[in-house]
Amino acid sequence: MNVTTRGGKRHYRTVTFDAQTNRVRLIEQRLLPHRFKRISTKTYVETAEAIRTMVVRGAGAIGATAAYGFAQGLRDFSGRGLRSFRIHGEKVFATLKEARPTAVDPLNALLEVRRAIADGKTVAAQQHLAWVAAEAFAERNLRECEAIGRHGLNLIQPNARILTHCNAGWLAFVDFGSATAPLYTAHREGRPFHVFCDETRPRCQGANLTAWELSQEGISHEIIADNAAGYLMQRGEIDLVIVGSDRTLARTGEVTNKIGTYTKAVLASRHGIPFYVAIPFSTLDWELQSGRDIPIEERDETEVLGAWGIAQAPSPKPASSPTKQSLTYVRIANPTSRARNPAFDVTPPELITGIITPAGIFKPAELWRNRKRLTRIPADAGQPRSP
Amino acid sequence: MNVTTRGGKRHYRTVTFDAQTNRVRLIEQRLLPHRFKRISTKTYVETAEAIRTMVVRGAGAIGATAAYGFAQGLRDFSGRGLRSFRIHGEKVFATLKEARPTAVDPLNALLEVRRAIADGKTVAAQQHLAWVAAEAFAERNLRECEAIGRHGLNLIQPNARILTHCNAGWLAFVDFGSATAPLYTAHREGRPFHVFCDETRPRCQGANLTAWELSQEGISHEIIADNAAGYLMQRGEIDLVIVGSDRTLARTGEVTNKIGTYTKAVLASRHGIPFYVAIPFSTLDWELQSGRDIPIEERDETEVLGAWGIAQAPSPKPASSPTKQSLTYVRIANPTSRARNPAFDVTPPELITGIITPAGIFKPAELWRNRKRLTRIPADAGQPRSP
Repeated sequence: MNVTTRGGKRHYRTVTFDAQTNRVRLIEQRLLPHRFKRISTKTYVETAEAIRTMVVRGAGAIGATAAYGFAQGLRDFSGRGLRSFRIHGEKVFATLKEARPTAVDPLNALLEVRRAIADGKTVAAQQHLAWVAAEAFAERNLRECEAIGRHGLNLIQPNARILTHCNAGWLAFVDFGSATAPLYTAHREGRPFHVFCDETRPRCQGANLTAWELSQEGISHEIIADNAAGYLMQRGEIDLVIVGSDRTLARTGEVTNKIGTYTKAVLASRHGIPFYVAIPFSTLDWELQSGRDIPIEERDETEVLGAWGIAQAPSPKPASSPTKQSLTYVRIANPTSRARNPAFDVTPPELITGIITPAGIFKPAELWRNRKRLTRIPADAGQPRSP
Repeated sequence: MNVTTRGGKRHYRTVTFDAQTNRVRLIEQRLLPHRFKRISTKTYVETAEAIRTMVVRGAGAIGATAAYGFAQGLRDFSGRGLRSFRIHGEKVFATLKEARPTAVDPLNALLEVRRAIADGKTVAAQQHLAWVAAEAFAERNLRECEAIGRHGLNLIQPNARILTHCNAGWLAFVDFGSATAPLYTAHREGRPFHVFCDETRPRCQGANLTAWELSQEGISHEIIADNAAGYLMQRGEIDLVIVGSDRTLARTGEVTNKIGTYTKAVLASRHGIPFYVAIPFSTLDWELQSGRDIPIEERDETEVLGAWGIAQAPSPKPASSPTKQSLTYVRIANPTSRARNPAFDVTPPELITGIITPAGIFKPAELWRNRKRLTRIPADAGQPRSP
């Protein structure tokens, strides 16, 4: 696992690949922020299961995990026949693609690896090319997030109060994050600002993951119930909203993201608050013609009927030492009631001020027209481009 | 405690008063739906504490509890001097009034009891009048909720899909509820419909209290994360929204209710979905000139940082038997993060289709003009009046 240093702290990439042992190495995100535990998957089936069960989650992170999982699955093939290798490869591809249906990053990552191996003349050559392509995807994900940070920097005015939803931070990508990239960049430049983290029920990735990341970085923040954002906007306490995306339609500018994003966009629009979406290129869907065609994942209802956390006496104060306790699930809801649990929603382009990409900030309607630019980080990525 | 029968089941009034022992009898709502436990408070200080800590909550329920607590406190006075009795009474009044600042029902209930005792010539007479007035407040609360049910009945079209937020059910009143009154009335008439219960973080009164009530009544329902209502509206899966209120300004039509109500009103307005608020007369504030003057309670941040429930293995299936387990608090959020926890928000009149009162349905702007009608249940309460 790659370890780097950030702000004086040891820092891990969210997803890496150990080519020697053919294992994908992940952070067990379901235990965060209460425990920091690394795990590794031994087979592509385990890797797909880690995506499905949200051991790893977030657009870029599951994209890179799918890419590595594809390489892992292909490298596990022990025969020499290209025909049976191709059949095996399609099974690996399908298994990883189906792990989470709404996100497009895994699909784009898998297609990229599949294109890359086509040049290989032997099974061994294709296995090698798959690994190289997966590493390239992950490395580019990091560079693209850094470019998002540079382009989005000037949206973070001094003393701005910024709302974010769910986790589009480094845990959701290979590193640095999409929605958090402008925040991290501004923080390093010494700009003061404050972040409100939507709790993001049912899985609370805002309260546990984003708040943890911001704490690690020393960024001023508070957690709010998802219900409270409208109240803060009414009182003029939010200046800017930045979120990530799991699938953004290049043809229409529609943005799929964690359930509740649409609600925040509607509120921001009513209050005249700028609403930005930050995405690397791999989150762009170049195929779908309409948001109605996006498959919306409905997850297990236990997520809505209860919550996971560390059992303790209620206290707002920090725990004195990192806990070794395991997570407890508590049933909150009436025992005889059931739940609906759609995991994503689609925000229409008219509610979106701009899309922050590694190539600059674009209006949602400009994405298709600028499609040639939306494939590589420009040399002038340090110069923000206004929407 | 008064026990009645509803739908073949034993049924309790939420709040009653035992004049013999001078105790206020309550349901311990913080344990619901996992345990049904009745408690009684021995002094007005305990009664105020039960309101503050939400043993009892909901507009009408804390109104009746405050009325009974006032009578309880006055009846605890053992002297004969009217002057010291009055001073004691003001202390009781202030203690109960301050228990929850946003709701106006307790204030209206306390004022009503105070007006009623003015006719008493002796301490004993005033103590008796306080009890009679408190009983009258509670009894009227029930009759008003029934009238709300009759006026709101025809909003519930066959097969309607109705969203409600928080709990404005019988647990929030003496009985029958405000937002739930049209639902219960329609259900008794045999009309089929389906209810979506917003979970209502941070205290989850939708997931635990409203869902429990609807289960008890056999009404079709599902719990959703607060984040999911916008998605369901986008898909045309919600036909109507009905909520309660903790303070509705008669002069302006502004509606204070549980945090997140404003967000649902904004979404409903965008989607052209009717948005109704159901209130008894005691929820009307006749004094305040602007929603900006409403004191918004900020509650303890532990409510946002975690959740209470029954520790168990995650499962959507009903528990086979009522649990005897006590509630567990789990810390969900990052241990070193803090939270903001505003408990209410204010919805402006332009987002509200109608206010369902015991005297009929009114546009928010019509409340003041119709102030004389908004004090008693009309004889024709069975004839719904269109907004």
